[in-house]
Amino acid sequence: MSQPLPPEALPEVPEAFVEVAGLLADAASAVTRGWFRGDFRIEDKADESPVTVADRAAEQVMRAILAERLPQHGIVGEEWGSERTDAEWVWVLDPIDGTRAFVTGNPLFGTLVGLAWRGRPCLGVIEMPILGERWLGAAGRPTRFTDERGSRAVGTRDVGGLEQAILRCTSPSMFEGESLAAFDRLRGAVKSTLYGGDLFCYGQLASGFVDLVCENQLQPYDFMALVPVLTGAGATVTDWSGRPMGLGSKGDILVAATPALHAAALSRLAG
Amino acid sequence: MSQPLPPEALPEVPEAFVEVAGLLADAASAVTRGWFRGDFRIEDKADESPVTVADRAAEQVMRAILAERLPQHGIVGEEWGSERTDAEWVWVLDPIDGTRAFVTGNPLFGTLVGLAWRGRPCLGVIEMPILGERWLGAAGRPTRFTDERGSRAVGTRDVGGLEQAILRCTSPSMFEGESLAAFDRLRGAVKSTLYGGDLFCYGQLASGFVDLVCENQLQPYDFMALVPVLTGAGATVTDWSGRPMGLGSKGDILVAATPALHAAALSRLAG
Repeated sequence: MSQPLPPEALPEVPEAFVEVAGLLADAASAVTRGWFRGDFRIEDKADESPVTVADRAAEQVMRAILAERLPQHGIVGEEWGSERTDAEWVWVLDPIDGTRAFVTGNPLFGTLVGLAWRGRPCLGVIEMPILGERWLGAAGRPTRFTDERGSRAVGTRDVGGLEQAILRCTSPSMFEGESLAAFDRLRGAVKSTLYGGDLFCYGQLASGFVDLVCENQLQPYDFMALVPVLTGAGATVTDWSGRPMGLGSKGDILVAATPALHAAALSRLAG
Repeated sequence: MSQPLPPEALPEVPEAFVEVAGLLADAASAVTRGWFRGDFRIEDKADESPVTVADRAAEQVMRAILAERLPQHGIVGEEWGSERTDAEWVWVLDPIDGTRAFVTGNPLFGTLVGLAWRGRPCLGVIEMPILGERWLGAAGRPTRFTDERGSRAVGTRDVGGLEQAILRCTSPSMFEGESLAAFDRLRGAVKSTLYGGDLFCYGQLASGFVDLVCENQLQPYDFMALVPVLTGAGATVTDWSGRPMGLGSKGDILVAATPALHAAALSRLAG
């Protein structure tokens, strides 16, 4: 499905874009916090994912900021579709990642803000509105984690081989058939596997708390923001075939804390 | 394994005991908060569950309070063993439920404080130190939820049948063989299954955010505190054979938001 990505280096991300990414996360966070555990009507989309008023409102506020600040940029959003996707810079927005967590009163949901340059992820924010935590990564910079105690650079850890690694995954129901067999091979090789978490799993890896995240069936708005956060923390991020993730990727993702762990995990997935 | 429990009603829990339960949760919470995401040595117990300095310290501070306030009561603790278990009132303490969450920087861990009268659960606290949330239940009282916005009674919801129900479970690895087959039958009958969460799953059910929790391989310190919280919120709580949970129960648990949902889920587990 996905094309090999061009080998050239990513451009430095203008500071103004980093600032806008923060504004988008702030705005979406304020909206979702206000609706968390409140009353709302839950709709069912065709894919059974619950969609809430908060989800739509949070994306609207982000799109309004982009229309004001960077009107020439493209947008791919989960709720309100795509515009100007042929622009050099395209924002990729997921107002609520972890919708099922959100609607069940679980604070492990959040907003994903990504920015792609010619289809390649170069800026990302993982925003946890209830926890008050944010990971921000941009090409060529160390990833920073911000909470009530301030902002600091974070990085992955190195526990050694697969048999020492903690694997994260939101749900085993992401896999079926071949992909379930592959995941089970990886699961059988690691120290332990922890479930739940959605976007938070990737933050845990960036901060050196877990070693692997392996998921499937993600959409671009689920993974584009993750890549710069993880890469800037020292992680290796590819699809299950070892290719870099971009707007054209099909949604299987393998993230490892170190290149060696990534190679070992990829080998297990392959059989 | 478990004996049928005596049919007589539970006594009213003295207000002083309710107050002590709150003090225990406060104290454990302060200890675990201080160690969360900090540096500590992780040991491996025989059962592979990671044990931390925080776990031991949090139970020690609770035992010190009990020794001061209610020295005649018995104690069953995860970390420091049992004493006076033949006492009429026995405290059942789990300083950190969700140890794997705790050691991976995930705030969905907490402290469980239970009190049994003649082996039967009659008071319980689910304490979430990082979220700043607490569920407290006592025999004959409505369960109360407390957060930064104050304290209020909570209750379960009624979504109708299994096909509308959200099922919670910390991990599918709790099940194997027969119990996995039973869990898969239930999972196949519900609307969706969400993983992760440990003690928080039960709080979500008590507050009407989810409809079923089905788990296995729990220890008394994992489930004793849950029962009064859930019962006081209107939930039905039994083992997988439909018997009430007590100190002698073997650790399989089924909680449902309504009696009808419980009966339907029990039937699915049975095959």
